[in-house]
Order: sequence, then C-alpha cells, then structure tokens
Amino acid sequence: MNATVYTLTELANHIGARIIGDDELKISGLATLQGATTGELSFLSNSKYLQFLENTKASAVIVDPDAAEGCPVDALVVEHPYIAYAKLSKLFDRSMSKNIGLHPSAVIAKSCALGNDVSIGANVVIEERVSIGSGVTIGAGSYIGADCSIGDYSTLNPNVTLYHGVRMGRKCIIHSGTVIGSDGFGFANHQGRWEKIHQLGGVVIGDDVEVGANTCIDRGALSDTIIGNGVKLDNHIQIAHNVIIGEHTAIAGSAGVAGSAEIGSYCTIGGAAAIAGHIQIVDHVHVSGMAMVTHSLNKPGVYSSGTGLMDNLTWRKNTARFKKLDEYTRRLFKLEKKFEQTFGEADKD
Amino acid sequence: MNATVYTLTELANHIGARIIGDDELKISGLATLQGATTGELSFLSNSKYLQFLENTKASAVIVDPDAAEGCPVDALVVEHPYIAYAKLSKLFDRSMSKNIGLHPSAVIAKSCALGNDVSIGANVVIEERVSIGSGVTIGAGSYIGADCSIGDYSTLNPNVTLYHGVRMGRKCIIHSGTVIGSDGFGFANHQGRWEKIHQLGGVVIGDDVEVGANTCIDRGALSDTIIGNGVKLDNHIQIAHNVIIGEHTAIAGSAGVAGSAEIGSYCTIGGAAAIAGHIQIVDHVHVSGMAMVTHSLNKPGVYSSGTGLMDNLTWRKNTARFKKLDEYTRRLFKLEKKFEQTFGEADKD
Amino acid sequence: MNATVYTLTELANHIGARIIGDDELKISGLATLQGATTGELSFLSNSKYLQFLENTKASAVIVDPDAAEGCPVDALVVEHPYIAYAKLSKLFDRSMSKNIGLHPSAVIAKSCALGNDVSIGANVVIEERVSIGSGVTIGAGSYIGADCSIGDYSTLNPNVTLYHGVRMGRKCIIHSGTVIGSDGFGFANHQGRWEKIHQLGGVVIGDDVEVGANTCIDRGALSDTIIGNGVKLDNHIQIAHNVIIGEHTAIAGSAGVAGSAEIGSYCTIGGAAAIAGHIQIVDHVHVSGMAMVTHSLNKPGVYSSGTGLMDNLTWRKNTARFKKLDEYTRRLFKLEKKFEQTFGEADKD
Repeated sequence: MNATVYTLTELANHIGARIIGDDELKISGLATLQGATTGELSFLSNSKYLQFLENTKASAVIVDPDAAEGCPVDALVVEHPYIAYAKLSKLFDRSMSKNIGLHPSAVIAKSCALGNDVSIGANVVIEERVSIGSGVTIGAGSYIGADCSIGDYSTLNPNVTLYHGVRMGRKCIIHSGTVIGSDGFGFANHQGRWEKIHQLGGVVIGDDVEVGANTCIDRGALSDTIIGNGVKLDNHIQIAHNVIIGEHTAIAGSAGVAGSAEIGSYCTIGGAAAIAGHIQIVDHVHVSGMAMVTHSLNKPGVYSSGTGLMDNLTWRKNTARFKKLDEYTRRLFKLEKKFEQTFGEADKD
Repeated sequence: MNATVYTLTELANHIGARIIGDDELKISGLATLQGATTGELSFLSNSKYLQFLENTKASAVIVDPDAAEGCPVDALVVEHPYIAYAKLSKLFDRSMSKNIGLHPSAVIAKSCALGNDVSIGANVVIEERVSIGSGVTIGAGSYIGADCSIGDYSTLNPNVTLYHGVRMGRKCIIHSGTVIGSDGFGFANHQGRWEKIHQLGGVVIGDDVEVGANTCIDRGALSDTIIGNGVKLDNHIQIAHNVIIGEHTAIAGSAGVAGSAEIGSYCTIGGAAAIAGHIQIVDHVHVSGMAMVTHSLNKPGVYSSGTGLMDNLTWRKNTARFKKLDEYTRRLFKLEKKFEQTFGEADKD
Repeated sequence: MNATVYTLTELANHIGARIIGDDELKISGLATLQGATTGELSFLSNSKYLQFLENTKASAVIVDPDAAEGCPVDALVVEHPYIAYAKLSKLFDRSMSKNIGLHPSAVIAKSCALGNDVSIGANVVIEERVSIGSGVTIGAGSYIGADCSIGDYSTLNPNVTLYHGVRMGRKCIIHSGTVIGSDGFGFANHQGRWEKIHQLGGVVIGDDVEVGANTCIDRGALSDTIIGNGVKLDNHIQIAHNVIIGEHTAIAGSAGVAGSAEIGSYCTIGGAAAIAGHIQIVDHVHVSGMAMVTHSLNKPGVYSSGTGLMDNLTWRKNTARFKKLDEYTRRLFKLEKKFEQTFGEADKD
C-alpha cells in the first residue's frame, strides 16, 4: 500500500482554501476529528462535532470561517467544509488498480471501438459493436453486451453485467454485481399462463451517474428505461422497465421502483422504499425509508408510511386493533351522534 | 444492429390474424401507439388507449374485431391483441448473441454431457457430470456446479451461478447475477453460537420458468426447493430453502419467501412483499406489493397490509396514535359502556 | 455422485452419542422423519414431530434421552439432537468440488502470499499484495482486490467480488454474487448536485462469519465497516458503510442496515427488516421480519412494526381510517371530556 502524501498547500489549491498554519505540512490521509492521528486531515462540518475539535489529534482540520479562530491545529478555511472534504477524498482513494491497457485474457470483439487510455481487466468479455470511450476502466470479469456504449472516464467495477444496447454517459461509476439491461418483467396472461413479452427497449444512462453494487436496471419493453444525469443509486436497488428518473435524484439501498414509474429531479428516496408502477412523482419529493408510494405525488415535500417500532407485545395488541379500525371508527361516530342527539350540538372549541 | 423486417402476412401467420390492408407491408419493429413511426407495428389492447389510435404514426396496428372498423391504418385483427403482441415481440428480440459452439476459453469438465447446438460463452465454467440439453445457451462468465442438469432450449444469461445439483427444466431463462442452489440459511443455536446446518437438498426448477436478475434460490436443507412449471420470478427475489412454488405463479421484484413456505399455483405476489416461513398459501391468491404475509392463506383472494402514504407531518401524528391504538380502543369501549349504563341500550340502526 | 457412507459408530463418535442398536449399521444420508428411507439417519428435536417417529422409515434416529425408549429403530442418543444433526450434516455435504491447487486460468499477482493447500478455481483474479491463508478455497470467477487478506480455511464460492483492502478472518464462508468492500453511499449535496465522497475505509470481517448470496457489505467512509466473529448474514442483505455488527448476531434475507448503525451481539434481525442509520442496538435484541427500526434500542427484547395482513377490502377501509387516526383520537378525547363534564368523573374500574 503506497500512502499518498500531499502538502497543505497542494490540498488548499485543490479546494480553494485559505491556509492557517504550515504551508508545507504533510498530509497522508483523511479521518474524523475523533479518529485522526498525526499526519491526517479532518473536517468540521456540523457544529455538534465542535466538542471534538479541541482535542483532535489531526494535524490539520478543514473548517468554515466561523470555526477558524478556535481551531487548535493548522486549518484549511473554506465556506463548505463537507464539500471540501468530499473533493479531497478523491485524492486519497486507493480503489481498483487501473492498469492502462487490455488484459490478454479479455475477449473483445473486433467490431468494438476503444478510446484512448482504456483499462480492460482480466476475463472481461465485450461483444460486437461496443463503443468504449477514452479513459474508461472495465473491471475483471465484467460482461458488455453487443451494441453498448460507455462514455469517457466511466468505470465499471469487476463482475458487472451489461446486456446488449445499454448506452451510458461520461464519468459514470457502476459497482460490482450490478446488472443493467436485463429483461423487464413483462408477461401477458393467457388462460392462466404467462406469455413472455420480449423486452425490445434499451437503457439510457446519463453522465455522472453512480450505481451501487448488486443493483438491477431493466431494459424497457418498447421504449427505453432512462436514468438522468447525476443520479445516484445505492446497492440492491430494483429499477423496473421504462422507469424514468430525473436528474440528481438519489435512491438509497434496497429500494424498488416498479415499471413505468416516473420520478422527478432532485428527489431522494429512502432505503427499502417501494414506488408503485405507472405513477408520477414531481421534482423535490423526499420519500422516507421503507415508505410505500402507491399513487402519484404532485407536490414537493416529505412523504412517509408504515408504523413505528414497538415492543412486540404492544405491537401485537395495536395491530390486532388495526384490523378492526374501520369498525371502531364507526362506533366512535355513532357514539358522537348519540351524545349529540341526547345533549344537542356541543360547543365548537 | 441488423433490423429484422417481416411482411404483414408473415406476422399475421405467426399469430393467426386477419389482415385488413396491404399483405406485403414491411414491418421493422414494435412500438406503442404514441411512440410508433413509419414501418412499425403497434397494438390496442385497452380501450383507454383508443384516443391514441386515431393519430398513431404506426404503419399497422393489432386490434380486436370491435376496434378493426375504426383503425385508420392497416390492421391485424385477433381476439386478444395483447397476447398477439407478446407472441410477436419474440421475433424482434435482439438479445445476447447466440453463437453455436463452445468458446475456447470455456472450462468444461470431461464428464459433462452436451446436447446438440449448444452455445457456451467465454469464461464459462462447467464442473463434473453436468448435463446440458440441446439448444441451450450459457452466457459468458456463468458457473455451473457439479451434477447440474439444464433442459433443452434453456438460456442462462452471462454471470449466472448454479451451485451443484441444480436441476432445471426446458425453455427456462435465467438472468444475470442470479444464484441458484446457494446454501439455505440454516443454523442451530448452541449456547448463543450458530452451528451451521449443511444444506444437503437441491433445487428443482420446472419447464418454462423465468428468473430475473440478481435473484437467489437457495437449496433445501434435506429435501429440495421446488419451483413449478411456468413460474415467473422478477429481479432481487429471495427464495429460501425448501420453499415450494406452484405452477404459473408470478412474483414481482424484491419480494422474499422465507424457508419452507408453500405458495400455490396461479398466484401473484407483489413487489417487495414478504412471505413468512412455514406457511401455506392456496392457489389463486394475490398479495399486494409490500404486504407482509405472516400466516397461511386458505382462501383465494387479494390480500394486503401496511399503511398508505401520507405527508410526513400527518404520518408522524397518526403513527404516534397507532402506538397507543389498543389503549384508545379500550377507552372507546369504556365510553360506549358508560353511555349505555347511563341511557340504556341504544337503538340498533 | 459418490455417496458417502458411515457406520453408526463413526457417526456416534463424531457427536459423542450413545448407540442403541447395531454399531455397524451403515448410514448414507440424512433426512426428515417423514422423508427418510432405508439407510438414512433422521432426528427428533421437537416433540411435535413425535407422531412421525413411530412410522419413520429411517434406519436410525438421533434422539434425546427421553425419547430413546420409544424409538422404534436404532438410535443415537444425545442431549441436543438438533445440534448433533447440524454437526453431522457437514459429513454429508457435497458442495463445490475442492481441487487443491491453482487453476491454470487463474490470474494471480506475483506479490500475493498463498498458504498451503489452497484451491483457486478457474478464471479467479487476485490483485497485488493479497494474502490467502492455508486451506482457503476461492470459487471460479471470483475477484479479490488488492491488499485483501483471507484467513485460513475460509471459502469463497464462485463469482464473489472483494474490493481492495477487505480483511476476512478464519473459517468464513461467502456465497456467490456477494460483493464486499463496494463504496458506501456517500455524497455531499452541493447546490442540488451530489459530490462523491470517496470511501477510504475498509471492511473487517471476523472468524466463522457466513455471508449469503448476492449480499453487499460496503466499505467505510473513513474508518472500517466491521462484522464480528460468528455473524451469519443471509442472502440479499445490504450492510452500509461503517455499520458495526456484534458477535454471533444473525440477520435474515433481504434485510438492510443503513450507514453507521451499530447492532449488538447475539441479536437476530428478521427478513426484510430495515435498520436506520446512526442508531445503536444493544445485545440480545430481536427484530421481527419486515420491521422498521428508526431509533436506538437500549433494552433487550423483541421489537416489531407494521400491520398484519388483511383481505384487500378490509385493508382499504382500515388504512383509509389510519390516515385520519390522529383526528379520530382527538374526537374520542373530546367525547370523553364532554361525557365527564356532563356526568362527572366516572368510576375507575
């Protein structure tokens, strides 16, 4: 493991920070305020962690102008320390080794077009007429079906599968085990049996999209499944056929989006949430974890469903009552009416 | 991409349709009424799309006899347009290239039996004593454990994993990333620690079964996990050990079925639904998306659970009340009783 | 398939059992009391299966001392028949063939350190500086990133992916399709767009850990994601970055644990349950299937959420009422108050 080392000046230049302290201080890694040791850089992005600043063992801390005064060690001062930390994190990333060139075991069809400086790992299989942009990395064991295109500087981690005809933009990252372009779940029921509807559409993915591990994005039935620019999908997500996801929307792990649902831009969908098919969700909607979205959402806002957690005994009682909630509500109405009939209209306080 | 072209006569023969219009019209693809362009065939299967028929740019449309009159372009007339569309969709499918033969990089044990016209992709690994039927396609990077059998005309897409002893019928389709025959989750708890119960059963899959991407079907503990003929499983589905699924049942994405559950035939299970272990579900049961099935279902019908979606503020209030629903119900009962005691039995309207 | 055969004496020695019957009886497999045939060994671990003991076709049965008297066939007598069955199950396991040695198609970096008796399958790719312990098996098509370490006698099934820097203990089992060390879902939102936070931590997995198929364990953002000794994870589980799971905790299929959640030791988490991020759960907590854990749990016990299953019509009515539960509860309170104001404080029975 070759540790990367930067001077405070180099880091400051990368994020446009003002330095308080030693320009030549050497930084070999990033860490939390509590976990940092000598040679590491930390950050303070939330005032609730201010308590940890005083005793941090970090050699330097990224802070905003308000916190700069009280910083006990060298500081990089920026408006948005968390964004600055995100930008610097890239410098210290030691991901999948990127060996420019084609591994001799890769099986690449002759009709493929490869850009400059591509890195194709061992046992990669690339079918006919695939277009691979410049600076693209394809991890070992990945499969790229015929007629796919992958934009410049995109990365597929090992063991990714792209079916035929997937078009992906620039600077995308796809994590291992993910399958893109598999058949949508389309069948016509004929006298109890399912007749397969072959899925003739494709998948179109914009620029700067990241897709987590073991996620699925199905191809469309007739037209395409579409993932907008800047969309971030976590692990284990199911995107069914003909779903459309707007730009810069983020979906957390294990969520599912059923067929032909359309999700707007700048939305966030919580983990394990489920979005029904054939509905529309406008921009700037935020869905809680594990929520079940069964109808279109026409107004921005935060939406939730489900019941909170209880000890099992309490839950058993409450859930038993829930099964008769309609009856109980009717009994309440009846009692209200009787009371009224007996005593007349009550005051409206 | 080599476009496939058929005459209207060829398509009509494939689905047993009556032609209204030009027998020699050339059709190069399928599309929706709204999305179709010249040379494409569309279909009208639901009267709510009738509005799109008038202005469709499709060159021909599959319609039922009632709609044939009003069709502004050439028509293929059948009883069930949606089924006809499903059947024709196969003709226009340009899936994984099927190159008959064994890719030189495939590693195939000598004790395997291969049928005629098999297509084994690059880097496929097939262990000892596997039986592969005629016309079978195994996608690149797939792994077939020892003693598996795969029936005629079945297709494994790239990067599928079959553990040892999986028996699969004819004309099955398995999508990428799917794992069949992995160990069931079986452990005996001994003084707080988990002793592994090795899973000695297998997996038996019928004919015409389709399994989506990144789905898991675990092997049985002692006897087999069984998937009936014609079953359709979507992506990300978890089928635990010793589950039995009846014929022609369909399960949507991200659903899970716990150990030893038995699901009948002709059922549909919605996306993200969870079926508890050791329960039985009769034929013709339909479970809503995200429903939690915790007990056996002995009658056909539609079943649901969960709460609908609300704006977060309303949800917080309601879910807080839910945590005391039993108490509130008891208070309602008490009030009813007091009212009765005070005024006597009310009328039974 | 080479059947393994043991004498009753050999099996008794393996589990410390007392034999009643023929020491030399030959046993070729394990089965349930109902399913067993001649030559098979069964077990009685739950008195509700006592009814099946009388007519079992098993040649011998593992029983506890109380049931030994009434056993109609040869018996292996132990205190805990289910644990004994678990231990014996290993003897009859015919899993992935273990061919000691390196398959010629495996791509192994020169800087790797391999222990004795390792078994590396076809098309395995192992990057620089990986340490593989003795007796380790790596299934075909698996990918091991740089700087990983795998402890003695661990098994990776085919098509597993380990990103760089994953450290795994001894005697672990990882099932196919599982991805360990993928990037945590970390992004800083800057004016509506997501800036990637590169994930610089690793994953540390203890000894005797089993991870099911198609599960994901993300690497930490700065520090490590940690899975304790003896933890058992089922299929399709999502473990987000910086999660810490205590020793001997078991998590069932399709569950998800969000970022930085800490789960104690000896817990069980039901299938499809979802654990929110940044919460703590103490030891000996049991969470029901499909429960949503949104806050820390400071006391051992059983916890649940959700609503039970109903027929769809009843559910529609009840769930509609749920959307106004707060209003109805307030109306109940008001009615109680009015009653009180009219009749004075009621008796407190």
